[in-house]
Amino acid sequence: MISLHDLPRYDMPQNDLHQNDLHHTDKLRNDLYLKALAGEPVPRPPVWMMRQAGRYLPSYLKLQEKYDFFTRCETPELVAEITCLPIDEIGPDAAILFSDILVVPRALGQSIEMKSGVGPVLENPIQSEDQALALKPVDVAEALGYVMKGIRATNERLAGRVPLIGFSGAPWTLLCYMVEGRGSKDFSKAKAFCYEYPHAAHHVLSLLTDITVDYLNAQIRAGVHAVQVFDSWAGLLGPDDFNTFAMPYLQRITEEVKGAPVVLFAKGAWYALELLSWQTRAAALSIDWTVGPEYARQAAGWDITLQGNYDPSRLLSPVPVIRDQVKSMIDRFGKDRYIVNLGHGILPNVPVDHAKAFVDAVKSY
Amino acid sequence: MISLHDLPRYDMPQNDLHQNDLHHTDKLRNDLYLKALAGEPVPRPPVWMMRQAGRYLPSYLKLQEKYDFFTRCETPELVAEITCLPIDEIGPDAAILFSDILVVPRALGQSIEMKSGVGPVLENPIQSEDQALALKPVDVAEALGYVMKGIRATNERLAGRVPLIGFSGAPWTLLCYMVEGRGSKDFSKAKAFCYEYPHAAHHVLSLLTDITVDYLNAQIRAGVHAVQVFDSWAGLLGPDDFNTFAMPYLQRITEEVKGAPVVLFAKGAWYALELLSWQTRAAALSIDWTVGPEYARQAAGWDITLQGNYDPSRLLSPVPVIRDQVKSMIDRFGKDRYIVNLGHGILPNVPVDHAKAFVDAVKSY
Repeated sequence: MISLHDLPRYDMPQNDLHQNDLHHTDKLRNDLYLKALAGEPVPRPPVWMMRQAGRYLPSYLKLQEKYDFFTRCETPELVAEITCLPIDEIGPDAAILFSDILVVPRALGQSIEMKSGVGPVLENPIQSEDQALALKPVDVAEALGYVMKGIRATNERLAGRVPLIGFSGAPWTLLCYMVEGRGSKDFSKAKAFCYEYPHAAHHVLSLLTDITVDYLNAQIRAGVHAVQVFDSWAGLLGPDDFNTFAMPYLQRITEEVKGAPVVLFAKGAWYALELLSWQTRAAALSIDWTVGPEYARQAAGWDITLQGNYDPSRLLSPVPVIRDQVKSMIDRFGKDRYIVNLGHGILPNVPVDHAKAFVDAVKSY
Repeated sequence: MISLHDLPRYDMPQNDLHQNDLHHTDKLRNDLYLKALAGEPVPRPPVWMMRQAGRYLPSYLKLQEKYDFFTRCETPELVAEITCLPIDEIGPDAAILFSDILVVPRALGQSIEMKSGVGPVLENPIQSEDQALALKPVDVAEALGYVMKGIRATNERLAGRVPLIGFSGAPWTLLCYMVEGRGSKDFSKAKAFCYEYPHAAHHVLSLLTDITVDYLNAQIRAGVHAVQVFDSWAGLLGPDDFNTFAMPYLQRITEEVKGAPVVLFAKGAWYALELLSWQTRAAALSIDWTVGPEYARQAAGWDITLQGNYDPSRLLSPVPVIRDQVKSMIDRFGKDRYIVNLGHGILPNVPVDHAKAFVDAVKSY
């Protein structure tokens, strides 16, 4: 492993956190999550779950029956209601905005259908170099203004109970969908496109980076307290391809997003933890459940917050097992510079009381 | 990372290789693959590709149209013909028997349908503790005798051109299918079963280990020169669960399979390379493309052969890029104690000339 531990480290953004105009952090009644991101000592680590406002919640399923997917994403009142469901029912220490990473390809003009049993299907996937090079920037305020409205409505409803996390897909992961046109085991069509037309791929990735930076900065101005970048398909790339098609864009996002901490989740890219820690301005790295706490800490060093990494399937264990494992996980990660979370989104078949047991186990640590 | 480098190491089985009654190795005209497994110096590393007798070959597709999947697996003449297709057309240094890991669940009485666009569907997946505990050993010679006939027919057809590799699914991966009933993104049903009924899960895993040992030993007696164990879903497990549900069974297989080298492929279990190298009797570890050569060597040490790990999607790159990358991959792994392969099975959409370019690039190294 290349050791970066002796190189000069970027200043971490959390150092700037309290100097920024985060007017809305003043009235937060629970700031455990932000403290953990800033590296401040906490009595216990904060906890939230990726996709915590999702299909395992009966209250969410009722709204899913009434409104289609993008109506749910685009209606500020529904965004606020859905985002707050787990806060009321499960009690995590942070809320994550209800939305989807595919709102960005949609803003770029790709229409998307959510097919049940299949997932998202994009109508006009990128199939040629020309099509890729023809992609033009978008005015985020105009095309994604509804997200900022959703953020304001959500913060009103949260009323300072917990911080609100904004998010975006990473450029590499968005390119995967935009070229492949739908979910895939290996996204080999998307990868082949990058290998055959690297120039066009970098054009798309660079454009997506510009949009992501604008989008996350707009979310922060609208009131989110931190942002997370989901590179869900990072692990499909080997280390060299990750350094070519993912890393430079993640790096730029952490440099150009201002005013709130940035959390990176490069799922499956265990090999990149060291680089992501030392060569980006991320405040935290979210990790999946294949990475042991000791390995993660060794690779990432001690000056960055780690988030994760309970195996989502493990929430299907009996409740006493969940309790024991959460305690042991916190013991291994340590209570500071650590945010308890899953290693990926919560599964739809998790019983609500298991999710609650997970959160409660952290609270009683 | 726990350092095992100072612990006493198991004697590697390749040391015994030439003492065993591998009568059929005498007449091999190309023994590069076996030399690499035994750690002997070679002029260039051997090369083969997982799923090299697969859907990217037009000659295979013709046979696929004529015979259904299990007919192809169960007819010795077809097994021999299909196994030899890539030897004739692409020229790798080893043949891998045409078969499927699911022949074992089939031998255990689970009927399986190969549904196009879906993959394998098992008719009676294990859904209860009682059903799991009721599983009984099988007589491998009787239930899987057709595989041994296929091996003999294949060796006749190969006529010593290259060694023949036998294989089996690993117990954990077989359990995944036997409980989940079909392929899955996360095999969360199978994992939940293990978490809820660990006793029953270990009964199934132990029984599958017994069968796998018998099965691989029978393959070796029938004439394969080495065997590979595919733990395709190892990477769905975190390190602790891997050590509980996968590792002990892989370990036992390497101890109880005699007379030929055993190669382990625990896909996605990068975190286990060190344990797999030091705590099993594997002759080689096959690795996926997320593991850099330097990391793999550092974790596995220098006394074991490594196999892999070109990204299968990378075969969709332009041919000159494939050539350059193969050369660089061999430079990084080193020519000895290394078998060139992909990091997973070849994809159906790979052009034949790209597969051939991959093999040729190794031959001209």
